[in-house]
Amino acid sequence: MNYFLKCVNCGTVYDPKEIMYTCPKCGPRLGTLEVVINEYPKHSSFDLKSKGIWAFSDLLPIDEDHYEVPLFIGNTPIYEKKALAKKLGLSDLWIKNDGRNPTGSYKDRATAMAITKAKALNFNTIYCASTGNAASSLAGLTAASGMKSIIFVPKTAPEAKITQLLVYGAIVMAVDGTYDEAFDLSTEIGNEFGWYSRNSAINPYLLEGKKTGAMEVVVQLDFKVPDFAIVSVGDGTVVSSIYKGFKDMKTIGLIDKIPKIIGVQAEGANAIVRTFESGHFDRPVDIDAHSIADSIAVGKPRDVLKACKWVKESGGYFVSVTDEEIGKAIIELARETGVFGEPAGAAAYAGLKKLAKDFQGKSAVIFVTGNGLKDIKSAMNFAGRVNYVKPDPKDVKSVLRQIGVIQEG
Amino acid sequence: MNYFLKCVNCGTVYDPKEIMYTCPKCGPRLGTLEVVINEYPKHSSFDLKSKGIWAFSDLLPIDEDHYEVPLFIGNTPIYEKKALAKKLGLSDLWIKNDGRNPTGSYKDRATAMAITKAKALNFNTIYCASTGNAASSLAGLTAASGMKSIIFVPKTAPEAKITQLLVYGAIVMAVDGTYDEAFDLSTEIGNEFGWYSRNSAINPYLLEGKKTGAMEVVVQLDFKVPDFAIVSVGDGTVVSSIYKGFKDMKTIGLIDKIPKIIGVQAEGANAIVRTFESGHFDRPVDIDAHSIADSIAVGKPRDVLKACKWVKESGGYFVSVTDEEIGKAIIELARETGVFGEPAGAAAYAGLKKLAKDFQGKSAVIFVTGNGLKDIKSAMNFAGRVNYVKPDPKDVKSVLRQIGVIQEG
Repeated sequence: MNYFLKCVNCGTVYDPKEIMYTCPKCGPRLGTLEVVINEYPKHSSFDLKSKGIWAFSDLLPIDEDHYEVPLFIGNTPIYEKKALAKKLGLSDLWIKNDGRNPTGSYKDRATAMAITKAKALNFNTIYCASTGNAASSLAGLTAASGMKSIIFVPKTAPEAKITQLLVYGAIVMAVDGTYDEAFDLSTEIGNEFGWYSRNSAINPYLLEGKKTGAMEVVVQLDFKVPDFAIVSVGDGTVVSSIYKGFKDMKTIGLIDKIPKIIGVQAEGANAIVRTFESGHFDRPVDIDAHSIADSIAVGKPRDVLKACKWVKESGGYFVSVTDEEIGKAIIELARETGVFGEPAGAAAYAGLKKLAKDFQGKSAVIFVTGNGLKDIKSAMNFAGRVNYVKPDPKDVKSVLRQIGVIQEG
Repeated sequence: MNYFLKCVNCGTVYDPKEIMYTCPKCGPRLGTLEVVINEYPKHSSFDLKSKGIWAFSDLLPIDEDHYEVPLFIGNTPIYEKKALAKKLGLSDLWIKNDGRNPTGSYKDRATAMAITKAKALNFNTIYCASTGNAASSLAGLTAASGMKSIIFVPKTAPEAKITQLLVYGAIVMAVDGTYDEAFDLSTEIGNEFGWYSRNSAINPYLLEGKKTGAMEVVVQLDFKVPDFAIVSVGDGTVVSSIYKGFKDMKTIGLIDKIPKIIGVQAEGANAIVRTFESGHFDRPVDIDAHSIADSIAVGKPRDVLKACKWVKESGGYFVSVTDEEIGKAIIELARETGVFGEPAGAAAYAGLKKLAKDFQGKSAVIFVTGNGLKDIKSAMNFAGRVNYVKPDPKDVKSVLRQIGVIQEG
C-alpha cells in the first residue's frame, strides 16, 4: 500500500519510513498525523462476514503479506430499530454494537492495526496508557499474538478492566494519578526503552484500524448512508476515524455523501466540546475530567485538533450529556434493544436522545463502543431493585402482588 | 417441522401439542424429553455467517415462519491453535468461543429457542431459575423481543450478575435459599401463573437451541470431526446438546462419526461424575455443590439421565477438575489464545489439560461457554498483581527493574 503521513496542523508531509508517530515541528499535541493513501483500489465487494476488519485490508496502510491477530475482529452486528426510530421521530435508526469484539470494545480495531505495524517493524513489546478499553484490548490481542504488553492505567480504572489485563498477562503499572498523567508517563518510558506505542492519537495507524467501523456500517447497510453518525468522544480518535472511514468510502466512489458526525462527551469531561465551540481548534481547552463514563473521562484529549477539523468538515458537531443522562441511556438502550453498553458506549444513545428533536425525519447510526459487562458498577446505580423473598410460594405471590405483576393468587 | 417428544427414561412418545415439558409418568427429574425429528431435510449448505443459529432453522423443531430474536446469536468464532495443540501432544485443537454471544454465554442459543416457542404459543412472560448465565440471557433476549422475564436467583448470587438482569428490566426474585430451592420455587409459581418456562432440562426445546453449537463446529471445520469434544457440565443439558448436534449431522449424512463427548465438572460439584461412575444413571447422586465456577455449581442436576446416557453413547465420559485447576486454566487459556473465559468456560480447558496424556495424537475441540467478564472476581485470584507507581518516571523504572522487565535505566 502506497501512502504518506501528513501533519493535521501544519500540513507537512512525511515519508512513513522517516516518522513513526507525530509531526516534529508541531509536537505530539497538535501535530498528530493523517495517513493519506495515494490510490485506492477500485472495488466494491468486501467479505466482511469471513474476514472481519481484514475485509478492508487493501484500504489500510499495511503490506499485502501483513500479520493478522488470530482473533476474529470486526463484523460486529448492526441492528435496525424501526420501532425505536419511530418513537424518536427518526426515519431510521441503526445500532452498531462494537461491544461484541474480542475484548469487548471498539479499540480492538485499532490494536489489531498496531500489532500488524509492530510485527512489520520487528517490535515484540507494545505499551499504552489507557483508561481501560485500549489497555484490555492491547493485553488480549498481544497475548493472542505471542507479544508482550506494558500498560499504564490510572489506579482508579474499573476492576473488570484491570483484571482483564492481568488475566492476559500484561505488565500493569497502576499510576497514582489521572489518565492524562499516565499517558505522559507511558510515552516517556516507552520512548526511552524503545517499545512500540499504542497510545491514542500519537500512533497514526490506530485511526486507520478504527475507520473500519464506519466502513463496516457502509457495507452492512448496503452502501446506504445515514444522515447522522453518533459516537462518544474521549481523546477524539474514534470520532475522527468514523469520518475517515466514510470519507475513504466516498473517495473510492462507493457512497456519495458522508454523514454528519456527532461527537458525544460527558459533561464533566467535555474538553473537545469546549474547544470546538471556541472555534480555535489549535488551542485545546484542557479541564479536570470527571464522569462515570471512564472510557471518555479525558481532560486533555490527544486528538482534539483532528477531531474538531474533521467533525466540522462533515457538517457535524459535539454535544455534552450528563452522567445522569448516560446512566438512563444504559438502561433504556438495554431494554429497548437488548444491547447492554458500558457508560461511554451508551453515551452515544444519550446524545441521540438529546438531539432527537433536531433529527426529525432523518436517519442515524449510533456506535456502542464498549460492552456493558466492562462496568457493572455504574449501571447498578440506575438499574432498579431486586425483590427479596423466602423460599415459600406464599411470600413470592405476596411480593408479585405488591409490585403489580399478578392480581390474583 | 415434523417431530415428536420421547421420554429419555421410559421411552414413551408424546405429541408436542399434548405435552410441553416433562414426562408425566417419570416426573421432571428423570422424565426429561428428547425432541425426535421425523425427517431431516437433505442439504449440506448452511449460511452460518449471515444467519447465526438460524442457519440451522430447518433442523430445529420450529415452524417455517418462526420468530427470531433480533440479536445476532451464534456463528461464534472457532480458533485453530496449532502451537498449543503441539505443546499438549494433540494433532489438532480448536477453541470455540461462545462468550462472544449477545449476553456473553452459550445460553443465548437456548434462550433464542425458548422465545421462538413462547411466541408461537402466544406467551408474553418467560421465567427461569438461574445463578447467572441463563438468567442474563433470558433478561437480555426478552428485552430485545419486547417480552417480560421473571427470574429467580439465590440471594447469594453475585451482585454483578444480578445487575445485568436489572439493567435489562427483568423482575428479579432473590430467594433466601439455594439454586435448587429457587429452581423448585420458580417451577411452582411459573406453573400456577401460566408463564413459559426457560428452566434447564424441563423445557425440551432448550437443548435443541443448544445443539447449534456443535452443528456450527461441524460447518466451521468443513465437516471434519474432532476426536473429542470437551465442555463443562452443570445441569447436563449443554453436554447433551453437543452430542445431539453432532448426532443430527451424522443422521443427515454430513459427517460419519460423532466425537467422544467429555463432560467436565468442578470437583466440588461433580454430581454427574458420581452418577456416571456409579453406572446407575437413573439414580442421580445429589450433593452440596461448591465451586468458583458458579455456572456449573449445581448439586441437583436436572438433566443427569440424558447427559449420562448420551455421553456414554458417544464413547465419552465425565471428569472432575479442582477449583485451582479451573483458575489456572482461565489464565493459561487467556494467555495462550486471547480467549478470556469465565470459570465454567475455562473448566473445559482444565479438563483437556488433565486428560491430554490420554489424547496424544488425537484432535479435540473445547467449548468456552461463557465470557470472562462475567466473573472477574474468580479470575482475579489467579491473575497476578498490579504494580502501583507514582506518576514519576524514576518510580516506574525502579518497579520495572524489580520485576525484571528492564535491566538498564
